[in-house]
Amino acid sequence: MISVEERQKCLEACLECMEACNQCYTACLEEKHLDMMRGCLRLDRECADICAYAAKAITSQSPYMQQICALCAQICEDCAQECAKHDHDHCQRCAEACRHCAEACRSMAA
Amino acid sequence: MISVEERQKCLEACLECMEACNQCYTACLEEKHLDMMRGCLRLDRECADICAYAAKAITSQSPYMQQICALCAQICEDCAQECAKHDHDHCQRCAEACRHCAEACRSMAA
Amino acid sequence: MISVEERQKCLEACLECMEACNQCYTACLEEKHLDMMRGCLRLDRECADICAYAAKAITSQSPYMQQICALCAQICEDCAQECAKHDHDHCQRCAEACRHCAEACRSMAA
Amino acid sequence: MISVEERQKCLEACLECMEACNQCYTACLEEKHLDMMRGCLRLDRECADICAYAAKAITSQSPYMQQICALCAQICEDCAQECAKHDHDHCQRCAEACRHCAEACRSMAA
Repeated sequence: MISVEERQKCLEACLECMEACNQCYTACLEEKHLDMMRGCLRLDRECADICAYAAKAITSQSPYMQQICALCAQICEDCAQECAKHDHDHCQRCAEACRHCAEACRSMAA
Repeated sequence: MISVEERQKCLEACLECMEACNQCYTACLEEKHLDMMRGCLRLDRECADICAYAAKAITSQSPYMQQICALCAQICEDCAQECAKHDHDHCQRCAEACRHCAEACRSMAA
Repeated sequence: MISVEERQKCLEACLECMEACNQCYTACLEEKHLDMMRGCLRLDRECADICAYAAKAITSQSPYMQQICALCAQICEDCAQECAKHDHDHCQRCAEACRHCAEACRSMAA
Repeated sequence: MISVEERQKCLEACLECMEACNQCYTACLEEKHLDMMRGCLRLDRECADICAYAAKAITSQSPYMQQICALCAQICEDCAQECAKHDHDHCQRCAEACRHCAEACRSMAA
């Protein structure tokens, strides 16, 4: 049984991760060495979109919430791993938000 | 010129409104007199979806942010007007979140 | 290995299912005995949204396409089962589109 | 008054444009001279997302369909203009799909 607090915590983590991913995406598009940012561009969009999707599932009490959170956790982990490779502030902040969201989603899905 | 603070305030209003609309939608679906909730069901979904869309536009610094916020303001106003007609707590909370979001989006779009 | 034809077939099934679910949703909202349509309203929205999400994953060659299709297949099956209970034309058409999409997505996910 | 045929034509144009934009986006991410593709990456995502949003509005008979189509037309035009600058097949196909969708949406919004 998932508590209201756990659900709220996960929602906040998803929204923060969506924000960090979209900001990282936009900042990546303006980086000098764009060639290095292919993985980030790809995963930032994927991750922002699944986080928005998970936020909708949580707030609408979707019967598929746990499965959506499981998928969100996986994409967040992949995005965290990619962003962590880059020194840019926006990448490091994004990696941190992704790790936090992955943890919250993993716990929801369990 | 839109300040970082204004943008952040609008983002928060959009996310809170999305949350209130999705919660109201789910609660409406369980109301006894569902027949009275047709307008709410219709507008809660519309409004939750445009708020999520506006949140993406704001966080990704979309060049279309202002136009998306203008549309969001209008849908929020319509949803507020509909929800305000109903005494249910979830409708009243939703109406309040919609009014707040409409105001923030209107100011972004100006 | 998924062929281009299989992918295209699945994309078309997702788009047709999204269309049928959104049409069924809107038609349900105007049904006389709305009380009977709670399950449809809930699942039509869920199903339309995951189909749109799957269509994006397929067209953007998402690395998570198969997992998204697996989830889509499950939601389509649930929506088909619910819609099949109702005699309305829009429900029967939706059930048929959902079954077809579930099959295509299941085959992508395998 | 918008006819069923016009609506269906616009829906198909939106779905084809979403497909072309997502394919162009993914193909751009693998181009050698990524530095040249910044505008495409930015607009392909914007355009794919608004087309998906417009498709939902059309299929669910949203009361905001015309305003959403007006916004979609504008984003499609901008994306067409950007993609037309590049010789890649995926860019040229995308520009064509965007122009076609812009026209259909403009006619819906009128």
